[in-house]
Amino acid sequence: MSEDIALLSAAEMVRRFRAGALAPSDVMEAVFRRIDALNPRLNAYVTLDRERAMAASRAATEALARGGADRAGPLHGVPVSIKDVTPVAGLRWTFGSPLHADQVATEDALIVQRLKAAGAIVVGKTNTPDFAFGGVTDNVLFGPTRNPWDPRMTAGGSTGGGAAAVAAGMGPIAHGGDLGGSLRTPAAFCGIVGFRSSPGLVPIWPNPLPWDPNIVEGTMARTVEDIALSLAAIAGADPRAPLSYRADQTRFMAALAAPRVEGWRVAWTPDLGGLLPVEPEIAAAVERAAEAFREMGAVVERASPDFGGLMDTVLPSRGLIMAALHADKVATDRARLPPALVWNVELGLKLSPESIAKGERTRGVLTQRAAAFFARHDALLLPTEAVAPFEVGIDFPASINGVPLDNPIHWFALAYAATAVGLPALSVPAGFTRAGLPIGMQIVVGHRREEAAIAAGAAFEAARPWAHRVPPCVAALGT
Amino acid sequence: MSEDIALLSAAEMVRRFRAGALAPSDVMEAVFRRIDALNPRLNAYVTLDRERAMAASRAATEALARGGADRAGPLHGVPVSIKDVTPVAGLRWTFGSPLHADQVATEDALIVQRLKAAGAIVVGKTNTPDFAFGGVTDNVLFGPTRNPWDPRMTAGGSTGGGAAAVAAGMGPIAHGGDLGGSLRTPAAFCGIVGFRSSPGLVPIWPNPLPWDPNIVEGTMARTVEDIALSLAAIAGADPRAPLSYRADQTRFMAALAAPRVEGWRVAWTPDLGGLLPVEPEIAAAVERAAEAFREMGAVVERASPDFGGLMDTVLPSRGLIMAALHADKVATDRARLPPALVWNVELGLKLSPESIAKGERTRGVLTQRAAAFFARHDALLLPTEAVAPFEVGIDFPASINGVPLDNPIHWFALAYAATAVGLPALSVPAGFTRAGLPIGMQIVVGHRREEAAIAAGAAFEAARPWAHRVPPCVAALGT
Repeated sequence: MSEDIALLSAAEMVRRFRAGALAPSDVMEAVFRRIDALNPRLNAYVTLDRERAMAASRAATEALARGGADRAGPLHGVPVSIKDVTPVAGLRWTFGSPLHADQVATEDALIVQRLKAAGAIVVGKTNTPDFAFGGVTDNVLFGPTRNPWDPRMTAGGSTGGGAAAVAAGMGPIAHGGDLGGSLRTPAAFCGIVGFRSSPGLVPIWPNPLPWDPNIVEGTMARTVEDIALSLAAIAGADPRAPLSYRADQTRFMAALAAPRVEGWRVAWTPDLGGLLPVEPEIAAAVERAAEAFREMGAVVERASPDFGGLMDTVLPSRGLIMAALHADKVATDRARLPPALVWNVELGLKLSPESIAKGERTRGVLTQRAAAFFARHDALLLPTEAVAPFEVGIDFPASINGVPLDNPIHWFALAYAATAVGLPALSVPAGFTRAGLPIGMQIVVGHRREEAAIAAGAAFEAARPWAHRVPPCVAALGT
Repeated sequence: MSEDIALLSAAEMVRRFRAGALAPSDVMEAVFRRIDALNPRLNAYVTLDRERAMAASRAATEALARGGADRAGPLHGVPVSIKDVTPVAGLRWTFGSPLHADQVATEDALIVQRLKAAGAIVVGKTNTPDFAFGGVTDNVLFGPTRNPWDPRMTAGGSTGGGAAAVAAGMGPIAHGGDLGGSLRTPAAFCGIVGFRSSPGLVPIWPNPLPWDPNIVEGTMARTVEDIALSLAAIAGADPRAPLSYRADQTRFMAALAAPRVEGWRVAWTPDLGGLLPVEPEIAAAVERAAEAFREMGAVVERASPDFGGLMDTVLPSRGLIMAALHADKVATDRARLPPALVWNVELGLKLSPESIAKGERTRGVLTQRAAAFFARHDALLLPTEAVAPFEVGIDFPASINGVPLDNPIHWFALAYAATAVGLPALSVPAGFTRAGLPIGMQIVVGHRREEAAIAAGAAFEAARPWAHRVPPCVAALGT
């Protein structure tokens, strides 16, 4: 059986491109063959940029042929996808909403500029729920994105299109955003890696709320190395993103040189110390992962920062963000917005200044508790989500381990915890349910310690080769 | 006439300490003589730490005598003052409020830890309006801080105690905070230098709102060099301050190596493009400063970013901060809080989510306009305040250049502009009114370009020696 080049990591692609062992245009062709075969079923991409991508990959091939390997960027010739809430000049830019069905972007977002400057080639735009709201990817414009591991199931959200694309070999790196887990939930559900980095590390532009530290942008990939490689390309200050700051991008790849966690003080918790319900299969996977860290030489204990009051800060801050971003649309186009988004905007519009102020004070308390915790621990392991992927068509699980849920955001509270305290959280594959669906685990690290998350993630990945099993629909294609 | 060692800069003190030409204990004695002579009139310090400061200065002297010059910190033996909103272990910590009249701190604030670690010695706590609220320094606990240039006048606020101390030779470096100009207004009023740096550059702890990017901490001094020296000591990431980030502290002093603005694109505006009223004397001083920059080789034009809508973001964000910090006290101790603070808390408690959300969107717009402006300009010169120091006992000027004012915060809007867009703003002395009172000018620079503000400030300082005239009450003391 010959090798499937569409499933190579971006780092491996670039190594082979530079060595003359593989051509960017061959990879791009393989990616589009995969898209043609699987995208109609998975609905990961909603807009393709086939002609420009193929032309760019031929140009990338020619540049190497002319001896340009030394000048090739770190992502030279690598196919990437861009979430459809983010503009790519000349491509449709819908936000997954009928309100923007016919919008075409005239300018690249900053992160697209940086990916392109590093040599990456945009394949197309990936599916998102309306305005990236929520933990599953579905909208009236394009319909649901399906899970490559079982197309009856959701790919998660909100970067579900990107996650399904990466898992199915339709480009090794997907761009996305993360407020309450949108780079982690779909990564967990699709069996890949997703990274929420620190607020400001990756500058966001355009952005109507540039001072908000809750929404970040970043990437998903099949390997931790590709996360580091892409993060190095997109991190660093830009004046249009006021929270951004100068960062030493070399430390992300450097963390991979000899990834080890020997002597690390690692905590694990299935449920943030009993705060949240979790399915037993998920909890068990994190416990096994903790055991793997122990086998790698870490000092492991069951412990969690105290996140009591989490929803007292999440609900007002999220309500205010939704009101700031979407109240105008609720006023004029309510019927064309998803009910869950309308619910959250209205929650925002009903907030009192007292509850907003109290939410910020609570956030301060949680942040200080987390800082104290990470002064004593190098990493915290916990589930990315409390549930396995569920069926397409369901907005959120009705209950978790028997505990009923009554709103569309509570179920991703395990992911929201890292957002609330602003710490880096890497979601890595951590096994499978009995039904064969992926389980994701977060590695949360201390303040601005992205390199620690990368090192720990790479060490865990190396120890657990099952993480890279191939989804059945992909395997069925052959090569 | 012998030299007045209490008026040496911190940098010069440290140079002489290391060379064995001066002893920290001699400087500390001179500082306390100055305090004994002037503090009863100026009311800059409200708590002194005489015995510990003298003992520490003797220890610093002995360390040098034992040959410790190589190991001496960058602020070895330098007397510094701490604003009384910030804790110093073992010292009274009142916030300038009768509500905390008897509180004694048990732990040093992070910035105090860093100043001490750099070798600085805390002289005492400086006066502040209740909870650092407002642009003048007065409270029922300690009374007003008076201006060394004319004790009938206010020292400004909220770091008025610190500014008066520095101007009068009661320690070369004062710690303070800045929300709407509290490190700049008093610096301008007292004829010294004050620097608001970027959110997160100087980590704040303790801090009930660690995610707020509006309040920063920093220093005031008599020279730009001392600002750079102290900033290098206090900047850099700490996990308890989530917006903080790793910074290269060497660049602040490096900016002083050969400060020049030749070829810089410098904009100046007396009034943010006509947005705000300003006294003609103040406007004229900034125009003269612009001319000085032209003489130094800068390309100078009259221009301003568009700050239209400034108060639409300042009022809600400030109202929310005040509600988050003080609503509990308004509920229980209203009569013992200053009316202006109660007014601002109640403004916060009356906010609608719509106005808060709109304020954040407006802030985003202003931030993008400023980013575009500073892509074309290296610095913006504008008045620190629109008025000269006014009489003690007045909370805020009734009018500016004939335009009546109707609330206690509008008059420092020229300072608030840099806060709203999160840019570094250095207030430097820029001359005197006909009545002999200091005028301050802000040098605002682009995103996280502290070193540019320092370079421009040092160049301007070198070109304008009148900036270092000595206040009359200080000169009257002799040496």
